Amino acid sequence: MNSAKPASQLLSPHNVRDLLDSIEAFLFDCDGVIWKGDKLIDGVPETLDLLRSKGKKLVFVTNNSTKSRRQYAKKFQSLGISVNENEIFSSSFAAAMFLKVNSFPSEKKVYVIGGEGILEELQLAGFTGLGGPEDGKKIAEWKSDCLFEHDKSVGAVVVGLDPYINYYKLQYGTLCIRENPGCLFIATNRDAVGHMTDLQEWPGAGCMVAAICGSTQKEPVVVGKPSTFMMEFLLQKFDVPCSKMCMVGDRLDTDILFGQNSGCKTLLVFSGVTTESILQDPSNNIQPDYFTDKISDILKSLEHN
Amino acid sequence: MNSAKPASQLLSPHNVRDLLDSIEAFLFDCDGVIWKGDKLIDGVPETLDLLRSKGKKLVFVTNNSTKSRRQYAKKFQSLGISVNENEIFSSSFAAAMFLKVNSFPSEKKVYVIGGEGILEELQLAGFTGLGGPEDGKKIAEWKSDCLFEHDKSVGAVVVGLDPYINYYKLQYGTLCIRENPGCLFIATNRDAVGHMTDLQEWPGAGCMVAAICGSTQKEPVVVGKPSTFMMEFLLQKFDVPCSKMCMVGDRLDTDILFGQNSGCKTLLVFSGVTTESILQDPSNNIQPDYFTDKISDILKSLEHN
Repeated sequence: MNSAKPASQLLSPHNVRDLLDSIEAFLFDCDGVIWKGDKLIDGVPETLDLLRSKGKKLVFVTNNSTKSRRQYAKKFQSLGISVNENEIFSSSFAAAMFLKVNSFPSEKKVYVIGGEGILEELQLAGFTGLGGPEDGKKIAEWKSDCLFEHDKSVGAVVVGLDPYINYYKLQYGTLCIRENPGCLFIATNRDAVGHMTDLQEWPGAGCMVAAICGSTQKEPVVVGKPSTFMMEFLLQKFDVPCSKMCMVGDRLDTDILFGQNSGCKTLLVFSGVTTESILQDPSNNIQPDYFTDKISDILKSLEHN
Repeated sequence: MNSAKPASQLLSPHNVRDLLDSIEAFLFDCDGVIWKGDKLIDGVPETLDLLRSKGKKLVFVTNNSTKSRRQYAKKFQSLGISVNENEIFSSSFAAAMFLKVNSFPSEKKVYVIGGEGILEELQLAGFTGLGGPEDGKKIAEWKSDCLFEHDKSVGAVVVGLDPYINYYKLQYGTLCIRENPGCLFIATNRDAVGHMTDLQEWPGAGCMVAAICGSTQKEPVVVGKPSTFMMEFLLQKFDVPCSKMCMVGDRLDTDILFGQNSGCKTLLVFSGVTTESILQDPSNNIQPDYFTDKISDILKSLEHN
């Protein structure tokens, strides 16, 4: 046992007040915290309502890049939760903001291995995206005397979760990174797996990103959690210091690490990929401040107060 | 300059005799040495004929797993070169032999991300393969209340070069490795790219293997070059000590390293992925015994002798 490490506390009627009193903004991961696939996790709307009623700011910070902020706002709405686009920080948005912050030339193009959400955020930020869903049905064939052509003006390849990954996209992205001088390689995130459906986990963006690392032998810039890149934008938007933020997530290596890297308080929930035995395993060295089954335990703990 | 490292010699009329006199078996890589895609490299048939006429044993050791040994023999034949199946050591064969040597239970199944060649070698070795080309058109969809099922009797996942890689296969292989107790993860090889066509390079098995590493967060057993696993079979088949073998290849990190790991002499050719500037770059620490443009230089050097 590492005595230097502060022990995580189970969220309870005894400590929930301390948490609420010290926090002005709650940062929620979505998959495994708010929903699993298309199913809302028990007690989520009531919990968010309660936090809003107490004047807490709510922010949704998701590594899932398949949707844009606009598309996420629609998903929340379809699940009966009212969330504003400005409260959503997706890794698709982060990828576009990374290019903006780094003065990516607008005459250069961006090749996308991933979903429509990345293309939409790129467009909103004034960039020209290529690839994405429309390359999902393209076929790359090995033919003699035939060159697989790629656009030489591509200056960045953004790789995110892509359920339509294929050899065409892998070759296209690989050629851009290997052959276009200075071409950036940006990963929305490197999550190994995720609860894309309620019943099980599926390969995450970490799978597609690793594939491109494998073919290019280069490492990407990661803009999603646990990278703190998105925190700059959160701080710009909300006038709340990190010490008064609490990151709530289901993953130790992305959500909790992101919170800790940013100086936030952290709350781990077991409604996603992490179980209590993973948290308590001696091999785990990421300890959140608090842990509990699901976010509605905040509500339940207050009721027992 | 590292003076401890013996310098590589350019193959020339002055040293070609030493090479030929000291070597009883030549081990050739295929892609980038014998052919590029479906095109024979200049002077190959004459060079192989000459070596055979001098009583040299010829062996073809390829990391490309898309074909079985039988299919490779047919490819050689279609290019006008007579090669026996027994002279071919492909990584598809190596994967099957790895299972055999490790007494893989015949009632367990093997899931294949890769080509027909792996399935054929598995069958010849008495194993039941699943997946491969027939899963190339399958679609994995994220649906609520719907479980993506996988065969619980899969005891090994073999990953090789797969131009029909898709999310279905990635999810299937990931589930087997993560959920089937003791399931093996075998990589035919980890080549980043290869000359699948004459005009350019394409993502190699290293791309698909990395994708599965990314989703499972596990590392595979590699059976192809530079792993020396195949050398045991070469030694069994040919009564030649490694010191009298010369590995001829176009890749430093697979072919030349394989040769060096096995105690063979090594000859690097520039007819594939490696250029002379890569060889001479200070960051490269793999130095072959000899280097030259292409294998027919053996013939040319002898003529000038």
